[in-house]
Amino acid sequence: MLPTVDSQLGACVHAELAAHGVEVLVGTRVEAIIRTTTGQAGQLTVQASGVDGSAVTRHADIVLVVAGVRPETTVAVRAGAALGVKGAIAVDEQMRTNLPDVLAAGDCVITHHRLLGQTYLPLGTTAHKQGRIAGENALGGNRLFAGSLGTQVVKVFDQAVARTGLRDHEARAAGFDPVTIGSEADDHKVYYPGSHRIAIRTTGDRTTGRPLGMQLFGHRHAEIAKRIDIAATAIFHHMSVDAVSDLDLSYTPPLGSPWEAVQMGTQAWGRESGRAAPGTALASR
Amino acid sequence: MLPTVDSQLGACVHAELAAHGVEVLVGTRVEAIIRTTTGQAGQLTVQASGVDGSAVTRHADIVLVVAGVRPETTVAVRAGAALGVKGAIAVDEQMRTNLPDVLAAGDCVITHHRLLGQTYLPLGTTAHKQGRIAGENALGGNRLFAGSLGTQVVKVFDQAVARTGLRDHEARAAGFDPVTIGSEADDHKVYYPGSHRIAIRTTGDRTTGRPLGMQLFGHRHAEIAKRIDIAATAIFHHMSVDAVSDLDLSYTPPLGSPWEAVQMGTQAWGRESGRAAPGTALASR
Repeated sequence: MLPTVDSQLGACVHAELAAHGVEVLVGTRVEAIIRTTTGQAGQLTVQASGVDGSAVTRHADIVLVVAGVRPETTVAVRAGAALGVKGAIAVDEQMRTNLPDVLAAGDCVITHHRLLGQTYLPLGTTAHKQGRIAGENALGGNRLFAGSLGTQVVKVFDQAVARTGLRDHEARAAGFDPVTIGSEADDHKVYYPGSHRIAIRTTGDRTTGRPLGMQLFGHRHAEIAKRIDIAATAIFHHMSVDAVSDLDLSYTPPLGSPWEAVQMGTQAWGRESGRAAPGTALASR
Repeated sequence: MLPTVDSQLGACVHAELAAHGVEVLVGTRVEAIIRTTTGQAGQLTVQASGVDGSAVTRHADIVLVVAGVRPETTVAVRAGAALGVKGAIAVDEQMRTNLPDVLAAGDCVITHHRLLGQTYLPLGTTAHKQGRIAGENALGGNRLFAGSLGTQVVKVFDQAVARTGLRDHEARAAGFDPVTIGSEADDHKVYYPGSHRIAIRTTGDRTTGRPLGMQLFGHRHAEIAKRIDIAATAIFHHMSVDAVSDLDLSYTPPLGSPWEAVQMGTQAWGRESGRAAPGTALASR
């Protein structure tokens, strides 16, 4: 489930779906969607096949097809635009194509990534930033796209799952020396009612001691979205894992802990990776 | 109300208290708290006087006295420790006092502040950090306290109010050239149910274009605590107001907007202070 995060968090998403009565079929290929006005449970029938070739049939009122994103470059290619990663339009950090006075932005262009260089990672936030930069530079400006970290969050019923930066295999492929450590923290002090556990996965580089990515899973009221943004802001600045503990973050028992969950995650990484600063002890609950 | 934030946000806190039936008396000095087992509404009677000398009497079951914090330095002074700001124990950034091999941390010591230099700002998060650094250095370490930003959050019934960094008068007193801009943003896309408005106050330095402080008020489920932490992390790194818009932060309609509220606040500051980058337009709702 949700292969954009590690399988441990994908399993959490799966459990949340199951708890709400959602049947999840993986390894199943949709062969046909047929409109059947005489259908048993609705007007549509989905015919699929399992990996073993077995037939799978489900009936539905609505079918959502979520098949990923590919860059639409037809017009650009006809005009002579060069393409880059995954066939997206090649642009520099000013969002300029190889064509004079032609700028491009959004899901059709390559993505400049702060840790990966050029990649293809279309997201709404990225498109907003690129669009402003392209527009400003079209008017004579000189702004640069500062780069994506692939920060994203998804709400799944009562839970949220978020990530920023790189996962272990992505970091390894990019030439880092990563290790990924799982940990947990409370969203706020457990003695105050309504606390939730947050599952944390921290990927850091053993060579530099820098966090490269973080993934969080927890209740939608556990401020998961904005917690990943703290990690994104720290990674944006290439902070070391130790330095993340230096950040002066807010605390009140109903809303947090003296060490923020993001700091607990990076401290767990420091301990378990063997790169902990002396004296970095386990913070008390 | 709550003079640690600007009066506009203090008024929001006042309104939330009033909405929950809390009577707020300001300009009123408590003269006596008397145990009265025959009291009308409880066992305690509070006698106070208004600024005009009028007598004010209230009955209560419980009286909480919240009178602020002063450093307790008796033992340290007897041992010869030098004192600093507001009579707190003077320590360097390694938490060393002037006495050989004596380190100090917590509410009894001065606070090294990233924007103010030495001040006195006792907070639990700060004490946790100072304590680790003092402990590590006592064991032969060489760690420095990176400095406070005075980041804090308070929950008030269903709302939360938070701040980081400096307010206008604090920035001016510290030699900056501040301007403070109020703005509002949604915690998430208004078309998705349950969105809340967030009141934002951004203090920035006209000379450098850097944010110096931010204050937020909004619903306890509007991720106020962790949003102020994004601002705290940006200010920790001395980002410019324009550069805050470069941060790659998370977005999904039920949990955010393509431009995070903190970015909307700094963009509003850029526009209204006259220091906006060209092309930094009002983001759509």
